[in-house]
Amino acid sequence: MTEQGDIAREDSLTRVEAFSDGVLAIIITIMVLELKTPVAEGLTALWPLWPIFIAYVLSYAYVAIYWVNHHRLLGHARVVTSGLLWSNMLLLFTLSLIPFSTAYLGEHHFSREATLLYLVTMLTPALAYVLLQGRVAATGTQTVASRRYHKASHRKGLAASAVYALGIPLTFASPWLGIACAALVAVFWMLPWSVLDRLFLDRVPPAGS
Amino acid sequence: MTEQGDIAREDSLTRVEAFSDGVLAIIITIMVLELKTPVAEGLTALWPLWPIFIAYVLSYAYVAIYWVNHHRLLGHARVVTSGLLWSNMLLLFTLSLIPFSTAYLGEHHFSREATLLYLVTMLTPALAYVLLQGRVAATGTQTVASRRYHKASHRKGLAASAVYALGIPLTFASPWLGIACAALVAVFWMLPWSVLDRLFLDRVPPAGS
Amino acid sequence: MTEQGDIAREDSLTRVEAFSDGVLAIIITIMVLELKTPVAEGLTALWPLWPIFIAYVLSYAYVAIYWVNHHRLLGHARVVTSGLLWSNMLLLFTLSLIPFSTAYLGEHHFSREATLLYLVTMLTPALAYVLLQGRVAATGTQTVASRRYHKASHRKGLAASAVYALGIPLTFASPWLGIACAALVAVFWMLPWSVLDRLFLDRVPPAGS
Amino acid sequence: MTEQGDIAREDSLTRVEAFSDGVLAIIITIMVLELKTPVAEGLTALWPLWPIFIAYVLSYAYVAIYWVNHHRLLGHARVVTSGLLWSNMLLLFTLSLIPFSTAYLGEHHFSREATLLYLVTMLTPALAYVLLQGRVAATGTQTVASRRYHKASHRKGLAASAVYALGIPLTFASPWLGIACAALVAVFWMLPWSVLDRLFLDRVPPAGS
Repeated sequence: MTEQGDIAREDSLTRVEAFSDGVLAIIITIMVLELKTPVAEGLTALWPLWPIFIAYVLSYAYVAIYWVNHHRLLGHARVVTSGLLWSNMLLLFTLSLIPFSTAYLGEHHFSREATLLYLVTMLTPALAYVLLQGRVAATGTQTVASRRYHKASHRKGLAASAVYALGIPLTFASPWLGIACAALVAVFWMLPWSVLDRLFLDRVPPAGS
Repeated sequence: MTEQGDIAREDSLTRVEAFSDGVLAIIITIMVLELKTPVAEGLTALWPLWPIFIAYVLSYAYVAIYWVNHHRLLGHARVVTSGLLWSNMLLLFTLSLIPFSTAYLGEHHFSREATLLYLVTMLTPALAYVLLQGRVAATGTQTVASRRYHKASHRKGLAASAVYALGIPLTFASPWLGIACAALVAVFWMLPWSVLDRLFLDRVPPAGS
Repeated sequence: MTEQGDIAREDSLTRVEAFSDGVLAIIITIMVLELKTPVAEGLTALWPLWPIFIAYVLSYAYVAIYWVNHHRLLGHARVVTSGLLWSNMLLLFTLSLIPFSTAYLGEHHFSREATLLYLVTMLTPALAYVLLQGRVAATGTQTVASRRYHKASHRKGLAASAVYALGIPLTFASPWLGIACAALVAVFWMLPWSVLDRLFLDRVPPAGS
Repeated sequence: MTEQGDIAREDSLTRVEAFSDGVLAIIITIMVLELKTPVAEGLTALWPLWPIFIAYVLSYAYVAIYWVNHHRLLGHARVVTSGLLWSNMLLLFTLSLIPFSTAYLGEHHFSREATLLYLVTMLTPALAYVLLQGRVAATGTQTVASRRYHKASHRKGLAASAVYALGIPLTFASPWLGIACAALVAVFWMLPWSVLDRLFLDRVPPAGS
């Protein structure tokens, strides 16, 4: 019934999730290694670490959001197709570059260049996520609830990408405007789902969801 | 039946646990990287590593306790709500700062400042854990055994926080008093559950537990 | 029914997969640590990182392919024998050397020596994979679909090894020919399964697959 | 039925395994980071890395053996008791010190002191494993096969500890004799189970196993 090469074994999807969890857990934890302990005595020697700490907080929130979304998205998948596997691998690759641009952002004290690199690094997983969502929407469960989910999630994804894209020119005015755009997307994804539904979903009656 | 956006898929909770396990496993293992091999010959060159080793032992015990408690707590959860996901992410974030303050404690030889930072780093996950427990208590299983568990666990959490808070002024007298407070909490959590039950639980008859 | 010492517990295979996932996730993520942030200001200071980035992309693709193949292969396993466990451990060992040769390739700017080391490091997991596949083919499911899978997969493995082996003499002509061989194998594994089936499978009717 | 505080939820044991897998996967992979790429050109610059490579191979085999044994041992567990959780945490702690002593062994070129430290680091997880096995034997499945397993495994554990203990005085004669003892234990654990059964098991008829 499934296309040649697809895996329909029940725990197959679980393993894709487990591998993704592993990669995301490492990405999120590697970033804390940038917080290097100062040799100098006294807690005041910790102050110069603040840009690295703020960059860590932002990127932690960002990767956490991807984990939450990824978790929800794969909840609508049904079979593990080659397309799903490789778009998932592409998403993980783009996310794996976050520790680099986070370190760069923190070490260069939110300079214009560092903020630009950071925003670009944020855009690439957003695009990879769209690809993955397309794969899941095409081969996953086709219930009313799933279609509603994909619709709302797709609109949120477009809105987030637009805010990032807006952040790039704003960074030329001030890096903090660019960071504000990144932070805005983060806050906006962390709001309870029900609030966002009202923004990004048509008035479809929640029939049987 | 579940609130819009909640995930009731059976393996959904498993994935939250798997991700948390990954992050905790990395946190616990990253700390051992602070034990850097001395270049000098002879085993006596290992002695200067003792503060880093003691700090590692303490923090390992600490993270291990969190894992055990987290494992028990999620055993009482039923659905994965947004509140559960985000308070779990907050808990993991606060725990991810432990390697930093552990390295600082070890490298600064349990100085007053390092001990203060360490105790504060210990308090933040305690508070995040209270948040997570509130979420699980509200949306998890509502059996007599679960309610007993949450009651006893909440009291233990308050007692632990009180000991940490007490450690902060004591550190001004001597850093070792602060460390003793942290060690006391660790020992106290590792005692068999049945001993602690007698301390932290009212005489509720174990009806049907 | 199973040989003494084999484990037939249902989740036993799951645990082999989980451990392999953990190791592969770490291998894939460790490599990104080679991308060290430049101290110099300006995005042009990022240009000298390109060989390290290209080496990372290539090795990421390579490890991702191994994950996908490993995932498919273990989908055909049935019991966890000692042979399966140890050939899996050997495969993970050979893969664990990839971050080293990737770093060497990137830091030595795709020099002849670095390319040779890289190609050899690519050959060893290919051989270990053949061993593991032999174990799974002998003790795994014996359906028509499994036999077809093992046949096609074995031929693909031989073809990939031949391309790597060809890459070694070509590297003496130019390192870029060696890299091209490695990249060719990667592209060739990432093509949809159905395309490759036509290349590597006899005209067996897909009876009941 | 289970003691207060025990967790009998079906996936509880799975989570203990998952966490252990995570820690072991990181321990095994962290060691490869000691293989630092030489700056000098030419493959001959790789030769000075041989002691670090040999130490890595030995420790990889060692951790892999622990994983395989741990995997088998927990296959005989039934409930997750506090005793099981904490002896497992102790085992993981002792194993977490292996990357340190491996690095020390490699960097100090298998010197007498480094070999002694290595053998001691090998003995501590062996003792922690005995503790864990005792917990599993007491609370796990009580079939004939399980009792046979625990008996054979306990004898193997004692034999391995004896060989390590013998290695310590032999190291004073020559470090290579100590390393040979460590390697002997590794080879001996990797032999197929059926060969070892004949050595370490009484002639119990395999009734119903």
